[in-house]
This record gives sequence, C-alpha cells and structure tokens, in this order.
Amino acid sequence: MIPFELTILGCGSASPAKERNPTAQYLKWGDRSFLLDCGEGTQMRMLHYGLKSSRIEHIYITHLHGDHFFGLIGLLTTYGMLKRTSPLKIFGPPGLAAIIELQLELTGSVLSYILEFITWESSFAKIYEDEQLEVFTIPLSHRTPTCGYLFQEKPGLRKIVRHLVESLKIPVEQLTAIKEGADFAGSDGVVHLNETITEAPRAIKRFAFITDTVYLPSIAPMIGEVDLLYHESTFNNENADKAISTFHSTAEQAAMIAQAAGAKRLLIGHFSAKIKKDDLGALLSEATNVFNNTILAEEGLKVEF
Amino acid sequence: MIPFELTILGCGSASPAKERNPTAQYLKWGDRSFLLDCGEGTQMRMLHYGLKSSRIEHIYITHLHGDHFFGLIGLLTTYGMLKRTSPLKIFGPPGLAAIIELQLELTGSVLSYILEFITWESSFAKIYEDEQLEVFTIPLSHRTPTCGYLFQEKPGLRKIVRHLVESLKIPVEQLTAIKEGADFAGSDGVVHLNETITEAPRAIKRFAFITDTVYLPSIAPMIGEVDLLYHESTFNNENADKAISTFHSTAEQAAMIAQAAGAKRLLIGHFSAKIKKDDLGALLSEATNVFNNTILAEEGLKVEF
Repeated sequence: MIPFELTILGCGSASPAKERNPTAQYLKWGDRSFLLDCGEGTQMRMLHYGLKSSRIEHIYITHLHGDHFFGLIGLLTTYGMLKRTSPLKIFGPPGLAAIIELQLELTGSVLSYILEFITWESSFAKIYEDEQLEVFTIPLSHRTPTCGYLFQEKPGLRKIVRHLVESLKIPVEQLTAIKEGADFAGSDGVVHLNETITEAPRAIKRFAFITDTVYLPSIAPMIGEVDLLYHESTFNNENADKAISTFHSTAEQAAMIAQAAGAKRLLIGHFSAKIKKDDLGALLSEATNVFNNTILAEEGLKVEF
Repeated sequence: MIPFELTILGCGSASPAKERNPTAQYLKWGDRSFLLDCGEGTQMRMLHYGLKSSRIEHIYITHLHGDHFFGLIGLLTTYGMLKRTSPLKIFGPPGLAAIIELQLELTGSVLSYILEFITWESSFAKIYEDEQLEVFTIPLSHRTPTCGYLFQEKPGLRKIVRHLVESLKIPVEQLTAIKEGADFAGSDGVVHLNETITEAPRAIKRFAFITDTVYLPSIAPMIGEVDLLYHESTFNNENADKAISTFHSTAEQAAMIAQAAGAKRLLIGHFSAKIKKDDLGALLSEATNVFNNTILAEEGLKVEF
C-alpha cells in the first residue's frame, strides 16, 4: 500500500501573519507529487522543507484569491529557469490561465516544458484520471468560483485466496482474469464463483481538500469516507457571523462536515490572522467537541495516511 | 540632517536559493518610506523585519523579471484588505500596470486607496519631485526594458552666518529671502553679497539603485557622487562571460562603476544562486580590489547613510 504524505506549506488566510504563510500543501504519493494551491512564497517554502518541486506533476488551484495562487507564476518561471522538461498540468478556475499567460508573455518567459491548463466549471466532476488515481472537483460556496478537490486511489485487483490456487489447480493464465472478477470453472466441471475464491482488493485511500467555503452541508456526501479531510476553519465560534459574511467556515462547522461525511480524520487550517498561536488550542476544542479525530495544520506539519 | 536607512529584504537573483530572497529593499527617510523592487514574499519579509509596509508612499520597479516584481500584487491586495487609505504611486516599466490590473479585476479585488502607475520609458529623466526629494530613472541594459533609480534630497536653504545677523542688524523679515540667495542692503547703504553673509546649505544625500544590468560605464556620470550606490553583482570574475551573455554584472564591474561615479560607498547584491554564502568573501575581494568601501548585501542588513 502506497502511503500518502501531506506537508502543510502554509496554514494562514488572506491577511499575512508573521508565523503563518498563505495556503499551499504538498501531496506526495509514492514517487508522485501534487501541489494544492500555491500562495505567495510557496516555492521558497518547498526549498525550506526540502520538498522536490521538480517532482510536481499537477497543481490544483481552488480559486482566484491571492492567498491561494499568487505564488504560482514564480514557480512556473523558476521551472523554466531550471529547464524542467516534464509536462505540467494546472487545474483551476476560469481566468487563471489568462493571468499566467499575460505574465509569461510580458516577462519574456520561455518555458522549457509543456504547460496545460485544465479549467473547471464549478460542479462535482471527475477532472483527472490515470491508472492509479482519480481527481474530482467539489463545488464550494465562496465569494468567487471555488472548487475543492477529492483525490482517490483506483481500486486494485481482487486477491485470490492463496491456498485455493493450489488446491483448485488454477492455471497461471487464468489468474489475471480471476483477479479482475471472473469465475473459475475447474477441470471437474465445478464453477467457483469469483467471490468464493477471491478477497476484496485493499481499501483505497482518499483525501479531500476543501478551501475556501461557507458551511456547506451538501458537500459531505461528495467527500464521503475519506482517510483525511482538510477543511478550512478560518474562524472560531465567537466569530461565526463573520464566517457567514465572508463565506468562510468555523472549526466547528468543519467538524460537522467531517462527521457528516464519515471522514476518518480531519485537518483544519486557513486560520484568521486574528487567531493567535496560543488560541489555536481553543479553536481545536471547538472542532473536537463535534469530531474527535481532528488535528491543527501548522507550517511544515507532515500528515501520513 | 535626516538619515536614510536602507534595509535589504532580498539579495538573491532569479533562481531561488535557500538562504536568499529575491530583490526588494526598503528605503526609510525620516518618516517617509519607499520600496525598491518587490520580489515574491516581500510583504512577509517586511512583517518579519518589523518594517511598516503601510508607510510606503512609492514603489519603484526596475524591470519585468519575476524576481523583481512577483510580490507586488500580493502587497497591493493586502493593502486593500487592511483598508489602506493613503494613495500609492508605482513607478515601473510598460506592461506592469496591465499585469496588476488584470489580477485585481479577476480576483475581484476592490482597493481602498488610489493606486497610480507612472510608466517610464528607458531614459535618464526626473520621474518624481516634491519639496524634499527628486527621483530619476537611470536607463540600464538588460534583456528587457530596465531602469535603475537615483534618489536625491533637495538642497536646503543657505545658512546665514550667525554673528552677522546681529552685527549687520538684518531685519527678521529679510531672513528667508537671504537664505534663498538674496543679497542684503544695510541701513548704511552697503550691499552685502549673499555669499559673503551665508554658508552653503548642508550637503544633500543621494542614493542610486542599479539592478539588473550588463556592465554599463555610461551610467557612472548619471549616478555621480552618491552617498550609497547599490549595484547588482550577480557573478564573480570567473563567470564574467556569463555576466555578458545574461546581461548582468560582476562584482568587479560594480566596483568600477562606483569608482567612475565617485560614489562614497558601494553595496553589492543580487548574487547568483551558484555563489554560496562561504564564497561571498572572495566575491567581495574582487570588488574591494577596485573600490575599497564596498559591503555585501545580506537578508535583513540595514545600511544608514
């Protein structure tokens, strides 16, 4: 089983705070890497934490607020200077490509790699798929078109019960078909139904990245039983009215989403600059009162799942 | 005399380096503040060094390479979030306004202050003047339109020789005119020429900010006898050919400019990521061999002059 490793590069919100950076997360999955949002300074933070930015295959941008994408143009031009050759896909909202392309043009940047923009419209949809992975957009409700992302491993093959391979004398050339779900007819004419000779494939891993949004219960079924849910928690309960007026969530609301979705673990971040470091414990309590398995994002935190 | 205080926010060049940030300098002059270039992360660095970004009246951008302006949009939108009200002037090359305006529009940013772009064409020209200060562009030779900047105090009034005010019985109402250069006719009919009763005003302070450019001796007379010259020094002598091919300068060439201009002090920076911290001493020697009063820029360095 390939573990996921998520590194928090920034857990702050829009206003810069001394000890917090704007949103970015580095998702490593085996030898594959993905970047989720790219606030100002993200490329320097990857250097700082020793994360290989060159390995990033895809960048997923949630929305066009600066604390989620102002670091993108710097990273893309750095790739050009470093002579990156592997293609790069950027998933994001309408307008992102225009912003990047204007800057590439006016700075005279020549990229050494193929840059592809995949622009979504705000809906629950599969926007990427390969042999190992599927990625979905989850439509959120913020002050500008915004989508979260759901990353989902593809299920592997079923496993043939080991001792039956020998006792039923299953020929080697039929193993793959059986792993893919076929029944097996023995030389004695007896048909063994697939579920009687195989076990379910290992559980798939799932991760959801939800930022920024007002409390939106309708996303819980889209998120489902993820291994890890990152959900923005800009405010505490005391400022719940501010969460509504600015289209953000409280930590308690993030926990309610985790609970409703059936998530295994909740990671909260995107803290308002007004919530000081010493007050984060209280914020965490507001979440754990609803959903116990919650952790606080902080700069450089690594979460494996 | 109001001292200038210059703080280095970044002394790196285009490729990000672990211990160096892209170009930005904070110029404080009494209670006035100016920002010179604004590489990615500049707003976070001002927070880090306790510099008041709200005090900045003008931002001077030298050219449209990312390591000199990718932090600008973040700073401008932060000002909006912090409800800045004082107007802000940005001096820079053609294209800068378009890049900023597109991003303000697509991020739905509403600024709470008046933002004015002053776009130069590459020439030696006065681009700003008020009662205290003049600023000139100095045309440089890089791979894209680039100007350095010269900051110059305005000369104050002449000083009347103290004991003459009494012995010549100069009426109070004539003092200002004399300080401004008028002669004085005594009650006995004797005319005292201005230069016989006044002293020159205090020397004015001057600072030049020269980045990025190939070695360009023609700028020395424009720079003149500045109190401090910042000149980019991307390469050492061993890579002098690279300086030519990339339109940058060596530390020795920076020193030759300082020498030819008659500068009082030279500050070098914009070091190639390939020059490690331990090699900066050798780079400095290459400059001091030509111009002794040279110092190395480093993150957070404050220079008073």
